[in-house]
Amino acid sequence: MADTHSLDALIQALKRLPGVGVKSAQRMAFHLLQHDRHGADALARALQAAVAGVHHCERCHTFTEHAVCDTCLDTRRDASQLCVVETPADQSALERTGAYKGLYFVLMGKLSPLDGVGPHDIGLKKLFDRALDGTVQEVILATNFTAEGEATAHVIGEALKARGLTLTRLARGVPAGSELEYVDLGTIAHALVDRR
Amino acid sequence: MADTHSLDALIQALKRLPGVGVKSAQRMAFHLLQHDRHGADALARALQAAVAGVHHCERCHTFTEHAVCDTCLDTRRDASQLCVVETPADQSALERTGAYKGLYFVLMGKLSPLDGVGPHDIGLKKLFDRALDGTVQEVILATNFTAEGEATAHVIGEALKARGLTLTRLARGVPAGSELEYVDLGTIAHALVDRR
Repeated sequence: MADTHSLDALIQALKRLPGVGVKSAQRMAFHLLQHDRHGADALARALQAAVAGVHHCERCHTFTEHAVCDTCLDTRRDASQLCVVETPADQSALERTGAYKGLYFVLMGKLSPLDGVGPHDIGLKKLFDRALDGTVQEVILATNFTAEGEATAHVIGEALKARGLTLTRLARGVPAGSELEYVDLGTIAHALVDRR
Repeated sequence: MADTHSLDALIQALKRLPGVGVKSAQRMAFHLLQHDRHGADALARALQAAVAGVHHCERCHTFTEHAVCDTCLDTRRDASQLCVVETPADQSALERTGAYKGLYFVLMGKLSPLDGVGPHDIGLKKLFDRALDGTVQEVILATNFTAEGEATAHVIGEALKARGLTLTRLARGVPAGSELEYVDLGTIAHALVDRR
């Protein structure tokens, strides 16, 4: 419709969000305009504030509003441990366990040759410099257990082995609370091999 | 994290979109900040433009940037037919068929007593005035075939019957391209009753 240019533009802009197709974008636009114009304003302001204010931490690459993030600046954390994760979401999942007191390096992606993501795009050079700075003694590879996450962990492991560092990977096994009957066979096989 | 206030605010704002939970909101925020900052800016501008520019058409209640929408102003359309739909999305589905040349009234909702949506919220008074303006001869009730859509059609039908108008409802039946075996029984029963 010629007289709804800004509505059409809004639907197109919403479609750029991951996981949002044209139907969802329409539903979101109609919802915002009909029932939540205040929410639309709030979202616009939040987008602008985040784009203006959020950068990557100089040391660990995670999102922060300062030059170096709070986690990296926290002197109570164990600087001899460096945990490598793919995304800030993975980092915050580890943080929520409360079981890890070391520092992080956030790749902000994973090696994915098919999508054109190479070692430079995920800052591997910077990771290697960091890991070999003399303070770090253990590198924990906590990339995802997907094909690309495994490949990323493998590449990092190959580059860092024989440099006097301890290299570890998160344990694979049966998730807490699960019944063997419903766990996939690959997981059970790993749990068998790594039994303790 | 204390140093990612504007990231957290963005995630909260995205969560207000229909169908978006905390995981999707996180994924959207990370995607925008990591891969599509231009898209985030575009979305912010589109939201502000739509909130500022999009209103309801004075005559049919659909979204428009003018006082009266293009469809209502189109003199080639048949003003004796008035099609009542729930949303602009339903209206555009009907428009895409190319099979309807009359005018519309968009309820921008449906009667839903449990959600506190009454006749006033969907502009029934205005619809009745419009339907009884002397020009309209047929009112086509094209609300959805859900419990609430049917109830809305029933209420409108009751109020307008015996006022000299032709009242029709979209035909119910077996969808084009479908096999009877896989069509639900209620639909087959309707198709049998309305057979032609």
